[in-house]
Amino acid sequence: MRITAIHDIVVPIKSEIRNAYISFAEMTASAVAIHTDVIRDGKPVVGYGFNSNGRYAQSGLLRDRFIPRLLAAKPEAVVDETGENIDPFKAWKIMMSNEKPGGHGERSVAVGVLDMALWDIVAKVEQRPLYRVFADRYNSGAYDEKVYVYAAGGYYYPGKDIEGLLDEMQRYLDLGYSTVKIKIGGAPLADDCRRIEAVLRILKPGQLLAVDANARFDRSEALAYAEALNSYELKWYEEPCEVLDFEVHADVAKASKNPVATGENLFSLVDTRNLIRYGGLVKERDYIQVDPALSYGAVEYIRIQAMLKELGWSSRRCIPHGGHQMALQVAAGLGLHGNESYPGVFQPFGGFADGHPVVDGYVKLPDAPGIGIEKKQNLWEVFRGL
Amino acid sequence: MRITAIHDIVVPIKSEIRNAYISFAEMTASAVAIHTDVIRDGKPVVGYGFNSNGRYAQSGLLRDRFIPRLLAAKPEAVVDETGENIDPFKAWKIMMSNEKPGGHGERSVAVGVLDMALWDIVAKVEQRPLYRVFADRYNSGAYDEKVYVYAAGGYYYPGKDIEGLLDEMQRYLDLGYSTVKIKIGGAPLADDCRRIEAVLRILKPGQLLAVDANARFDRSEALAYAEALNSYELKWYEEPCEVLDFEVHADVAKASKNPVATGENLFSLVDTRNLIRYGGLVKERDYIQVDPALSYGAVEYIRIQAMLKELGWSSRRCIPHGGHQMALQVAAGLGLHGNESYPGVFQPFGGFADGHPVVDGYVKLPDAPGIGIEKKQNLWEVFRGL
Repeated sequence: MRITAIHDIVVPIKSEIRNAYISFAEMTASAVAIHTDVIRDGKPVVGYGFNSNGRYAQSGLLRDRFIPRLLAAKPEAVVDETGENIDPFKAWKIMMSNEKPGGHGERSVAVGVLDMALWDIVAKVEQRPLYRVFADRYNSGAYDEKVYVYAAGGYYYPGKDIEGLLDEMQRYLDLGYSTVKIKIGGAPLADDCRRIEAVLRILKPGQLLAVDANARFDRSEALAYAEALNSYELKWYEEPCEVLDFEVHADVAKASKNPVATGENLFSLVDTRNLIRYGGLVKERDYIQVDPALSYGAVEYIRIQAMLKELGWSSRRCIPHGGHQMALQVAAGLGLHGNESYPGVFQPFGGFADGHPVVDGYVKLPDAPGIGIEKKQNLWEVFRGL
Repeated sequence: MRITAIHDIVVPIKSEIRNAYISFAEMTASAVAIHTDVIRDGKPVVGYGFNSNGRYAQSGLLRDRFIPRLLAAKPEAVVDETGENIDPFKAWKIMMSNEKPGGHGERSVAVGVLDMALWDIVAKVEQRPLYRVFADRYNSGAYDEKVYVYAAGGYYYPGKDIEGLLDEMQRYLDLGYSTVKIKIGGAPLADDCRRIEAVLRILKPGQLLAVDANARFDRSEALAYAEALNSYELKWYEEPCEVLDFEVHADVAKASKNPVATGENLFSLVDTRNLIRYGGLVKERDYIQVDPALSYGAVEYIRIQAMLKELGWSSRRCIPHGGHQMALQVAAGLGLHGNESYPGVFQPFGGFADGHPVVDGYVKLPDAPGIGIEKKQNLWEVFRGL
């Protein structure tokens, strides 16, 4: 088999939301289609990939470096030993040729977009959902029939904060989520505590609240919040501080009774390993949120899982950022803790297959071959012309 | 004052050399010109910037995000309190708006290119060399009249390795360099020792050899080389291992009698701080090689210097990667240890002002306003049409 063409476009995923760190009004994503000459169901197999929210489209890097390298590679350099399917690890090596070590940002997104499309091809050639491929190859055949997802939101509503917040949270609970997440750090600590207490009051047994500071606190703020949050039983306390300041992470992990969650802004195995080595996280309690679509794709994520295992961490401590179908496939196939979800936000990339509602906090995956992009109508509209 | 236009182009800096990690045959760099409405010598001031070697041109990120943000900013958002010059720290904040924390690669290059051009403007408006601006603002007025530079090269010569290597080293010594650097790790340890010993034999008193592994060793190789290199008195042992594997750095720093040097593949304050915190480097002995042109520019480099000072490190332990005029200005103005130099390689961006030879291992800077790009003819050819 061979790759016959690769197309990419830039798509806005703008949203009027704003976290403690950035506005998403100008946010974009890259969408790519990798065409092959393998025929399934009478048509050539095409793989689709996109990037997760929070980092921008990467058309420059895709067109200058990563797409040309894939297209210039000899077919045997990117296919497996059968010659009938892509080997994403070999393709990854081609894409990363002549790339120096270090500097894991932006290019990790570009490679992640292409990696997603390559895995979509792999599963489509095998004519099964991608999570089954992951399970067979990297998880001894085990997979989760349904994946735990939580509803991320809880932004600030100027003027009617508590009321607006509770309306939003109730909407998520009514949708079937059992865990909801709100932002903190955009208001004084006392106000945030009032917001947290208000949400906790509407939760029923079995329902949980997580809070997310989006890396905005300095050491003393992060610790003051940790202490204050110890009064509540939370699902987790997310991104308490500068994402690469492992010293503060370690202080927070020590001060916090609640689980600590972080990792959406780490984009490589080596950065994640540094978090584990130096961040003081507790492997029986805390969560790693690395997003495979932003972090050199599933190839690197599979390596990250091996690294975590070596350091004594279970895959069940991982719950990727992003709220997209690729991370859901990874979560089901590699046996993660679960996956993020942003109900109705970051469209069309956010969210899962149509007709698969969240039930009691879990979502099922479609039986369609590949990632399931064709099974989410508004996302398929982006790709069908590619 | 205001910015009136920003232009960028992509320029090949290809070279037939190959280090232990990548080939430079496809290497490119971005060159930018920032036009202003300030008149000096009868013409509007234009600032020029480019990126250092080893990372690629960044036209995608420049055009999608960083140039539009600068152009969209209100003039008062990027000028200093006099209104008559750029404030690069304010401009930096504009460029980094809506950028999430973490992921310090690629965009650090794009911002570094623009930061260089902004500082070129600052010094041209003040009508003095940039190092004098740095000295007055960030070094209590102190600066170095001449900067220590070393000649980096020493690649492998298939077929006639020792002979070719010695010819190259002798050429550097004849050019006036007192320190030369060769690659290691591309041959077995015993062969590398023979290469090192051959070079040491042609050095005269006061002349030194540094060796560079370009991050290719695993832990055991890095330690085996450290032990073997302990037999020689070297200027330093550079990039012994994976650039973000601080555990191995710490092991090497402990095992090595020679100074350890690293940092060219760290691109932010927080990554550099992690090296200092966890890398086990010795502040009286080792060297930090962060390249300002790849690492969010001089604004971030000035912050890095403040961080190093706080952690007890002197600016004299810093010797930037890259061999370009911007790093030379930074070295002279902030009182660094010195600067890299690649005689004749990575043209037209590598190297210093024409007519400024290296004498006894030191080079002087031109008196021209700004960075001195106009004083290097082959580099000026790139920019004069921009």
